[in-house]
Order: sequence, then structure tokens, then C-alpha cells
Amino acid sequence: MKSAITFLIAARRCEIRDLEQLAMNCDLVQALGELVHRLQGERGTASLHLASPDGRFEAQWAGHMAATQVAEAAVCHLLDGLAPDAGPASGGGARLFTRIAMVLHALDGLPELRAQVGARQCGAAEATQRYTRVVSALLALVFEAADIAVDPAVSRLLVSMFNLMQGKEFAGQERAAGAVAFATGRMDAGSAQAVAGLIEAQEQCLRRFEEFSTATCLRQWRALEAVMPLTELERFRRRLMSFLSGAELDGAMADDWFACCTQRLDLIHRAEGHLAQDLKEECARRMAAVRAELDDQQGLLVTLSAVAAEMPGLPRAVADAGGQVGGAPGSEPGSGGAAGAVAAQALGPRLTRSIVDTLQMQSRRLQQVSDELTAVRAALDERKFVERAKGLLMAHHGVGEDEAYRLLRQTAMNQGRRLVDVARALLDMSDLLPPKT
Amino acid sequence: MKSAITFLIAARRCEIRDLEQLAMNCDLVQALGELVHRLQGERGTASLHLASPDGRFEAQWAGHMAATQVAEAAVCHLLDGLAPDAGPASGGGARLFTRIAMVLHALDGLPELRAQVGARQCGAAEATQRYTRVVSALLALVFEAADIAVDPAVSRLLVSMFNLMQGKEFAGQERAAGAVAFATGRMDAGSAQAVAGLIEAQEQCLRRFEEFSTATCLRQWRALEAVMPLTELERFRRRLMSFLSGAELDGAMADDWFACCTQRLDLIHRAEGHLAQDLKEECARRMAAVRAELDDQQGLLVTLSAVAAEMPGLPRAVADAGGQVGGAPGSEPGSGGAAGAVAAQALGPRLTRSIVDTLQMQSRRLQQVSDELTAVRAALDERKFVERAKGLLMAHHGVGEDEAYRLLRQTAMNQGRRLVDVARALLDMSDLLPPKT
Repeated sequence: MKSAITFLIAARRCEIRDLEQLAMNCDLVQALGELVHRLQGERGTASLHLASPDGRFEAQWAGHMAATQVAEAAVCHLLDGLAPDAGPASGGGARLFTRIAMVLHALDGLPELRAQVGARQCGAAEATQRYTRVVSALLALVFEAADIAVDPAVSRLLVSMFNLMQGKEFAGQERAAGAVAFATGRMDAGSAQAVAGLIEAQEQCLRRFEEFSTATCLRQWRALEAVMPLTELERFRRRLMSFLSGAELDGAMADDWFACCTQRLDLIHRAEGHLAQDLKEECARRMAAVRAELDDQQGLLVTLSAVAAEMPGLPRAVADAGGQVGGAPGSEPGSGGAAGAVAAQALGPRLTRSIVDTLQMQSRRLQQVSDELTAVRAALDERKFVERAKGLLMAHHGVGEDEAYRLLRQTAMNQGRRLVDVARALLDMSDLLPPKT
Repeated sequence: MKSAITFLIAARRCEIRDLEQLAMNCDLVQALGELVHRLQGERGTASLHLASPDGRFEAQWAGHMAATQVAEAAVCHLLDGLAPDAGPASGGGARLFTRIAMVLHALDGLPELRAQVGARQCGAAEATQRYTRVVSALLALVFEAADIAVDPAVSRLLVSMFNLMQGKEFAGQERAAGAVAFATGRMDAGSAQAVAGLIEAQEQCLRRFEEFSTATCLRQWRALEAVMPLTELERFRRRLMSFLSGAELDGAMADDWFACCTQRLDLIHRAEGHLAQDLKEECARRMAAVRAELDDQQGLLVTLSAVAAEMPGLPRAVADAGGQVGGAPGSEPGSGGAAGAVAAQALGPRLTRSIVDTLQMQSRRLQQVSDELTAVRAALDERKFVERAKGLLMAHHGVGEDEAYRLLRQTAMNQGRRLVDVARALLDMSDLLPPKT
């Protein structure tokens, strides 16, 4: 017969185990951020390479490819540690494992893509799209790793990190699209609209990143922003848009555009590093706090065991405390009721009180954690609504993911509403949509 | 290096493990329902015993006590199986374990309560309140066991079950309050209001039970309702209320009131049995479905292993499939890229396609499950809002739990709003409340 104290301590151990899992997920998120950064570099130079017939970007692309492969090995090493047969430390749910499978599958497609880029067997736009799909799979895994409901403070930082990474990816996509436009000297209305959308999406993500960030990270972010080539970037963006009105442009500008965007991406990547450091420290702080509280409870347990050893017929709350006292009459249901009652009185109100206090404190704390997590997770739910609305549009309109997103974004802009509100409204109306054909 | 297929299968195994945990929780919920039923009987006869000086209810009370102890042993046996050191099948989170600790602590108080009831050392109202607190701890554990987000259909039934049990508990509290009133021939305005509140709360819970129930259970419920002594119950309730206007009443009616309420409680308990049966079957059905899908995927794995054994340099998606083929060149990042690409082509579009299909199907299915769970859990969140609002009132007004609930319910009735809406509004305003004194 297990006692109340046994389960109280088990609850603490669960919290520690969950925090350990969370710490592993934080490490994974950091490694994924590194890999995304490398892939963004590889994608950018691959698109420059394919858009420039003179081959002057080939070496740069190859250099990025090598860097990607190092980052990929680090991610795969961490994923192996998460695998279900990797020992008692491993863990994760069905959704996390499915996302990992999708990441591994996406990474498996890279060798073929690289072979085709090297042999110029695919266009810049197609290569960009295929690299982007790999990055999307990685970001979806970051999102899933962030969606582990354990600790509000850590979850806030993970939401902040996810938005920073997602914002950076939109910036990376802008760099790639702009690089193709500058290098080829062409941009159609659709691409221009796509770039405008990417700029808006970046800004939304960065606002969300700031909202969920810590004061320290925010200070570091302001310092990084101060050295970002933002004026130069805006000037380039204006030139990009002037393509539409048929203005002529120096093709050599592609290099300057790429360098300007890259400088900004590298600075955002440095902000990711600061945030990752904060994440690590917050995890460690929480773990230390829970461990200290567990030690306190084990102290209580020892006290109770000592008392229990001196008296027969204890109530179940303490009868098996410490695992040394078994088979006390009071622990048999239907017997020793009076003896248990006497023992409970003999234990004194102080000890009984301390069990009750511990129980109530723990229960209240877990309730508060759950409430705070609900608030943080509302931010994660927003992305889920948008993803579901995209899926609905893809199924009903028979369009691709990019087009579905464009449709949503366009509707939001036309109606002056937030993307997530349009997505929710669409999902609410889904029963009224015509059946799929 | 683990493959995509390995993680896909790991995801399935997680689902099975989660379903096994859910099945254990369903068994626990059923055993808790039995214990609650027995405690309700013991509480009712204890209050009759204490209210009747002639001792004619003592034997009946002792009989119920013995039945409670059998049910208690069954619950404790299941809890031991959930304990963290009970082997690999055990599991549960910090919140579940904390609730279990609170249940064990509450059960520890029973021997003392029984000793006092036996010696007539406490009043009927106090004894009822103390039994009620034990039942509350049990129902809170039922709620926590139901709050495991795994399968929408099972979760719906658990929500239905929780509401049935909670509704039955309100009916049990009504029986106890009425028994005291009939036996003593006294009832004040406060008690009458409390009884009115209990009737309303019962009806709300039973509506919610019906809403989340299955068609089969609903049919069985209608059949049980048809034989419930509802007309007789309403007649008794009218008589109870007439106490207020000073009408005289036959004290012997206590027996008839008790018998009438008991008949209804027993029938509700039978509905719990039907629902528990449905729960068991639904769990088994889901488990069988997930196992069958896992077998299918393992079939795919075997096919891929056979192909993998015949060709070197496979992409990572299949390189370690079956665990027989290790160290294939393609599984080393940075090497064998071209070989991997060739192998992927050699594998044929059919196999690659089947991996992609499986990945996408699993991802979509998990997304859908998550969406459906969100809808079901909204019902569970309602209770959480009410609990939090109660806690807020208790802290700020310095009142007990019953009084806090009465305040909430009164406000809801006055404003013609739902209890949960009043609770939410209160929580939204909590920042504006004066600080605790």
C-alpha cells in the first residue's frame, strides 16, 4: 500500500523528468536553429549560383553545403538521443516522433537536390522551393518541441524562439527571392507581392518574439538592431519594387543585396544564440528549484519514517514512508481504524499539518502552472489555426501550400484583420464549404 | 543513425502506450465510481444515525461502512499499480500523482471520522461535510484521470462519466441534507437554498452527461429514467420546502425520503456501469485500430529492409530499417550523397511514395486528433474556471468552499448567466480585486 507521501514525491519526480525532457528539447531547438541558418545560407547561394550562368557563386555554395552537413550531423546526433530505444532518458510523444520522421525524410532529399543544383538540372526558383520545404520541416519540429507544456517561463522563451526563427526564415526567403530578381533582372507582379508578404510576415514574427522575450534578450536585441543595415535594406527593397515599373538595374547589385540581407540574418542568428542561452539558464533554474523542493519533501519523509518506526497502526499517509515500515495494521482496509485514528492524534497536529500543507501547496502550484501555460499556449494555437485553415484551402481549392497562405494573407489584408482571425473564421465556416470534388 | 521509419513506428508505439495509460485510467475511474457510491451510502446512513437518537440506523450504517472498505481496497490496489515504482506499465503526470496523494490523505481521515460517528461525537451536518470532502477528493481524481488528452472518443466518454458522477454526488448531498431535515423536523432558509442549488447543479451535470454520451448509453439512460421514482421525489422535495412555512411533518418520512433518493442513486450508479462498459469497449477498439496500423507499418519496414539489404548507399529513410543494415555510406552526412540519390531512384517511386503517404497520413491524423481533443477539453476547462473562481473568492472573501460556490451560483442566477461565464468574468477582473488582507 503506497502512501500519500510516496505519490507526492512521485509527482515531484515527474516534474523533474518533464523538465529534463524540456531541457533536451531546448538543446534540440538550438541545434535546429543552427541547421536552419546553414540551410538558409546554402539556399541563398544555390539560388545565386543557378541564376548566374558564369559559375562565380559555385565555390560559395559548396562552402555553405559543407557547413550545413556539419550542422545536420549535430541535429541527427541529438535525434538519435531522443529515439525510443536510446535508454531511460529518451522520451517524446507521437507528434514529436512523427515530426522527427518528417525531418529525416526531408533531409534524405538533400543529396538529390544538391546533385541537381550542381549539374544545373533545376531552376533557381525550384531549388529555393525545395530547400524551403526542408526548412519548413525543421521549423515544424521546432514548433512541436516548443509545444511541450511543462513550465510557463521556459515555454514563453520557446514561443519567443520559435517566432524569431520563423521571422528569420521569412527574411531568408526574402533574400532568396530578391537575389533571383537582382541576378536575372526580372520580377513579375506575383513575386513582388510574395516579397511584400514576406516582409509583413517577418515583422509580425519579430513583434511576437519581442512580446515573449526576456528583458535581457530584448536589450541584446536592441543592440543588435542598432548595427543592422536596415536603411540599406529598405533602399534595396525600394529598388526591388521599382523592377515592376520597368526601371533598369545593375545586375552586380545582386551581391550587395545578398550581403546586406546576410548581415541581417547573421545578426538575427546571434539573437537566437542569446535566447538559447537564456533558455538553458531558465531550464537549469527551474530544475534546481524543483530538486530543492524534492529534497525538502524527502526530509519530511525521513521525519515521518522515524516517527512511524516508533508506533504501530499508523494511517496510510505515513505507513510506508521510507519503505521501511510495511504491514502496519492501520494500512489494512477494514482493520485498525481506531488505532490509526489514535496514531494520527499521537503524530501531533504539527506533522499532519505539514502533510496537508505540502499537498495543498503542490496542488495550488500545479494549478497555477497549468493556468499560466494555457495563456502561453494560446500563442502556439494561433499557428495551429493558420495551419489548419491552410490545409482546408488546399483541400477545397486544390492549391498548393504557398497559394493557400497567399489567399489567407490577401483576405486578411483586404479585410484589415489579423491572419489568425481570418483563419479562425474560415474554420468556423468549414461546415458550410462545398464538399471536396 | 535512426531512420524516418524508426521514428514513425516509435510514434505509433507512443500512441499505444498512451492508450494503455488511458485504459488504466478508465479502470481507475470505474473503481472510484464504486467507492464514491459506497461512501455516499455510508454518508447517508451516518447522517440518519446521528440525527436519530434511537440508534435504529446503526446496523445499516455499519453495513455500508463494510461495503465502502471493500471498494476502498479495490481503489488502493489500482493506485498501487499506478505508483511510479510499479514497473514499466506505470505512468501518470505530476498532477495525477498529486491528486492520488490527496485521495490517500482523505481516506486516511476515515477511521477517525467513523470512530466519532460511532461514538456520536460529531453532529450529522459535520459528519456529512467530512464524508463529502472525501468524495470531493475522489471526484477531483476522476477529473484528473479524465483530463488525459489521448483519444477524442474516449475523452468524450470520460467527460460524460465525470459529469454523471458529479451529478450523482449532488443528488447524494441532496439526500443527506433532506434526511437530516426530515429526521430532525428542522430546516433553515440557508439549508433550503443549498438544497435548491444541489437540485439545479444535478440537472446541469446530467445535461452535460447526456451531451457527451453515446447513443447506446443514452438509450439505456432513458430506460433507467423511466423506472426512477421521479414523481415521488418531486413530491418529497415539495414537502421539504414546506418546512420553511412551518408545516408539520411525520418524522418517519425520513425513511421514505431516503429510500426514494437511494433508489434513484442506485439507478444512476447502474448508468455509470453502462458508461464504464462503453468506455472499456471504446478503449479496446482504439487500441486494436492503432495496433493494426502499426502492424501495417511494420510490414512496410520489412519490405524496405529486404530492398535495403540488396543495395548499398540507401538514403537515411530506410538505411537502418529493421536494424540489420548499419553504416551504409548514405547514412553518413557529407558522404554518399550521389549514391543515396541513385538508390532513392532505384527504390522506385512506389516505395518512396509509400513512406511519404504514411508520414503525411500520420501527421494529418494526429493533427485531427489534437483538434478534436481541443473541443472536448473545452468542457473540462469549464470546471477549471469554476474551481479557480471559487479559489479566488475563498482567498478574497475569506469564506469556505461551499460559500464561495454559493456566491458564484447566486450571481449566475441573478444575472441569468451560466456559472462558467460568471466564473470567467470574475477571473478576468481578478487584477481589479482589492489585495488580500
